[in-house]
Amino acid sequence: MSSFHIKSQIRVLGIDDSALIDDRILVVGAFFRGGEWLDGVVSTYITRDGMDATDSLIKLALNSKHHEQIRVIMLDGVTYGGFNPVDIVELSQKSGSGVIVLMRSLPDLERMRIAASHLPFPKERMNLILKAGEIKEVVTKESENPIFIQCSGIEMGKAIEVVKLTATHSNIPEPLRVAHLIATGIVCGESCGRV
Amino acid sequence: MSSFHIKSQIRVLGIDDSALIDDRILVVGAFFRGGEWLDGVVSTYITRDGMDATDSLIKLALNSKHHEQIRVIMLDGVTYGGFNPVDIVELSQKSGSGVIVLMRSLPDLERMRIAASHLPFPKERMNLILKAGEIKEVVTKESENPIFIQCSGIEMGKAIEVVKLTATHSNIPEPLRVAHLIATGIVCGESCGRV
Repeated sequence: MSSFHIKSQIRVLGIDDSALIDDRILVVGAFFRGGEWLDGVVSTYITRDGMDATDSLIKLALNSKHHEQIRVIMLDGVTYGGFNPVDIVELSQKSGSGVIVLMRSLPDLERMRIAASHLPFPKERMNLILKAGEIKEVVTKESENPIFIQCSGIEMGKAIEVVKLTATHSNIPEPLRVAHLIATGIVCGESCGRV
Repeated sequence: MSSFHIKSQIRVLGIDDSALIDDRILVVGAFFRGGEWLDGVVSTYITRDGMDATDSLIKLALNSKHHEQIRVIMLDGVTYGGFNPVDIVELSQKSGSGVIVLMRSLPDLERMRIAASHLPFPKERMNLILKAGEIKEVVTKESENPIFIQCSGIEMGKAIEVVKLTATHSNIPEPLRVAHLIATGIVCGESCGRV
């Protein structure tokens, strides 16, 4: 995956979760062609504060009819459904796609450690978060806030290119912006911006 | 509404329903700027083969934070959730938006009459279908099949312009194409094309 050429219509699967209003958390995947065109929608459920996010996201990617075309999976942070961490190395290896994690701010590891200590498998949870590796700041739009990314199965330089290419309407790449709109619009009745 | 000027970023709410796998049918609204950009997602539920589609769609449009901006509501046929007909005149008047109904083929009124006869309020159902009025054939993309439209609260000529403007990626306007992908992707796990 590390040497692929980036086309403007590169197929990207953006994955986001819904609000924590239940123990079963809706997870939505939005298939995009580059930063322009929604090609399909997939969905699944994970357990709130569980340990099943990695397996569920692998299945979400593999079971889709778009699977063969996906070059990159984009995640909104490393934890889904509360504190259900994703092993991005395993997700990349088993899905055969590069994985890019996007964050709006640098993670507060001390706060995460405290949160993990109140849940089963605190060490395993923190290990998966640390496993996501190096964090890079990226300016996708000059006038907007920078974002931060991590990656696996794709070189950091290429990951930055993909993020910039797909951030067509805001500083957030379209596959993630749209997955977020869908997940909140379905579960809350209306999609609401992040505060 | 009948004399508005059509901007390329005209705000359109496309509404589609999900597969009939339950008695509560998920209905999804996709807010678009022209044919390019998803601005928000709303959702609600209606009763399978019920008579509550008109009220539910009016609420879906009115309760949204995007309500003031919506110029056109696009529907995929006049019946939702099985045979739950929408009064497009009432929807247009109460929402303050023009309504455009899109169909892939001409409706088979005789078949509809037979289906209605097996349900409560058969006459009321057929009256709402007939109320949708004149049907026009529109070619949105030269190489693809024509579609058929009806409208209320917007002149037919303007409705044709809006449909052509928003059919950017296929012969189906983006707000409806995306609402369909979302509704089926959430309820079936994966969005599937229409046969």
